[in-house]
Amino acid sequence: MKQVVVARYAQGNPKASDFRIEEAAEPQAAEGELLLRTLYIAVDPLLRFSLDESTLTGGGRMDLGAPMIGPTVSQVIASNHPDYAAGDYVEGRTAWAETTVVAPDKSDYRGPPRKLDPALAPVSTALGALGGPGQTAYEGVIKVGRLQVGETIVISAAGGAVGSMAGQIAKALGARAVGIAGGREKCQGLLDLGFDAVADYKASDFAAQLKAALPDGADVYFENVGGDVTLSVLPHLKRGARMPMCGFIAYYGLGMEGPGPDHLPGFYRQIMNKALEIKGFAGLFAGQKGLDDIAGWMKQGKIRFAESFVDGIDAAPEAFASVFAGHNHVGKLLVRVAPAI
Amino acid sequence: MKQVVVARYAQGNPKASDFRIEEAAEPQAAEGELLLRTLYIAVDPLLRFSLDESTLTGGGRMDLGAPMIGPTVSQVIASNHPDYAAGDYVEGRTAWAETTVVAPDKSDYRGPPRKLDPALAPVSTALGALGGPGQTAYEGVIKVGRLQVGETIVISAAGGAVGSMAGQIAKALGARAVGIAGGREKCQGLLDLGFDAVADYKASDFAAQLKAALPDGADVYFENVGGDVTLSVLPHLKRGARMPMCGFIAYYGLGMEGPGPDHLPGFYRQIMNKALEIKGFAGLFAGQKGLDDIAGWMKQGKIRFAESFVDGIDAAPEAFASVFAGHNHVGKLLVRVAPAI
Repeated sequence: MKQVVVARYAQGNPKASDFRIEEAAEPQAAEGELLLRTLYIAVDPLLRFSLDESTLTGGGRMDLGAPMIGPTVSQVIASNHPDYAAGDYVEGRTAWAETTVVAPDKSDYRGPPRKLDPALAPVSTALGALGGPGQTAYEGVIKVGRLQVGETIVISAAGGAVGSMAGQIAKALGARAVGIAGGREKCQGLLDLGFDAVADYKASDFAAQLKAALPDGADVYFENVGGDVTLSVLPHLKRGARMPMCGFIAYYGLGMEGPGPDHLPGFYRQIMNKALEIKGFAGLFAGQKGLDDIAGWMKQGKIRFAESFVDGIDAAPEAFASVFAGHNHVGKLLVRVAPAI
Repeated sequence: MKQVVVARYAQGNPKASDFRIEEAAEPQAAEGELLLRTLYIAVDPLLRFSLDESTLTGGGRMDLGAPMIGPTVSQVIASNHPDYAAGDYVEGRTAWAETTVVAPDKSDYRGPPRKLDPALAPVSTALGALGGPGQTAYEGVIKVGRLQVGETIVISAAGGAVGSMAGQIAKALGARAVGIAGGREKCQGLLDLGFDAVADYKASDFAAQLKAALPDGADVYFENVGGDVTLSVLPHLKRGARMPMCGFIAYYGLGMEGPGPDHLPGFYRQIMNKALEIKGFAGLFAGQKGLDDIAGWMKQGKIRFAESFVDGIDAAPEAFASVFAGHNHVGKLLVRVAPAI
């Protein structure tokens, strides 16, 4: 079987060549363990943190030469654990490998693999709309952003798994959703999902597009990127605007400092002059309530899950790198490793 | 009579030479106006914003050659307004002049001059503990910071009017207060006010002092300065810490950008990794409730107002400049223009 191992730590944006594909022996499930066949790998931008050579972020660094680890959906091939049976679908944090072994009773803080009901929704959605990204969007819009009916939310990286859900949740709440994404195709995809307006950060007239999309400013800025996009958004925020922050992809490749000038003085000036509220969060508190609400909105047709696929584990390194290069997919980008049995 | 006029807009930190002292004719109070004799001028750091040549901050820029305007305490010499009588003490926003005229019915958003009762507290405290700085400290600690019994708050510019109040309010609430100030004398002044620990940002071992003062980290960072002090504090904040921000004196002389490197990536990283909550505020919502609570704590001996004075209107430009240079006074620095009649 094949697996993706970490060849070197990333410098700046990750590259496909930071990984290599290796052949490995099929693993064996010991007592209390499950043998899993990987169906989907999520190329999650937050995984960038575990590819830093320095441990600024406080642990979680991958070992060189060892398999990359991240969110996956798998099917149980063989179970030596009473809570799981062969054929079960599970979502968890496992190796980027065609086959892998996990011990549910020795899992990390995320808990044991979560069993999925394929009758409720395609199991791939456990990595997107009905998984971490959906929960992150839910917490950011509702709990941290406190978005109200009639308000306007502007969302960076709106084409991503979290952003595309955040905009749809905002619409389900009766708010106005403005998305920022790169490229005309991706922006059109957001309009198709129901966003009220879009701005293409790769276009030469991005500033004008943003101004036209936010004629009265924004009450909430769902922050996913940082960098130039954010510096363009800040002047459009209303006094007292909330800024839930769940990521900052523009800075992932930097440490604590980027090249000058220093933008922190201007950031402070806007926080103070506009009485902005900024809060970092990780979507850990949306919980089952968030997933249930999202599932309900899906049933009502208010939310569609957006997914894009690339095929085969060999494609995983390139797919991960494309997240940082600004690919053209809308919604969660998944590597489809194998079909279910 | 003498007045302080704006000679030029400030570049970086304000200098005494940005102002000049002029002789002017004694003003006359028309119908509906008050003739005031200025007793105290507050050299408030936020006044720096109105000395920017650019209007980044959205208005409030002083006119060159016109008197400087800011918070003062005055005594009514003559009243042509039914709500005020000669001899009354008032706090308001007036010219830096020995004598001035105001029209209470045409005042700005801050409302008409506030009448003071000299039997309750010295009238100078209306510019400090029982005025804007007290309200700012109250709102930052209680409303924005949501400081709880047993928690630790760290306060930058702790020797200032706002910071020295914030620390004492924290103590009155049963929390632990750590102050950051410049110079041994000022730090000792904070300990005398009841702060539990201090760190001297001008000392070569500032980092070690800060670490010793915050062995278990801080739950709230009362932010008043920005710059190097803040970059030193951030690593000591606990997960979920709140950061009420009412000023950033280190950046007042800069526009939207400072010299590199760019510290915004590191700032983002800490917000996200620690789920920090940052909120700009201006103390406008503490209102009478805040002043009443502070007055009550004063009666109980839990809060002492800290004031320092320089004498004569001629001293105002230098006093204002000293705020940015890190003077040695603890508490509100006031220019004592004249004694009450």
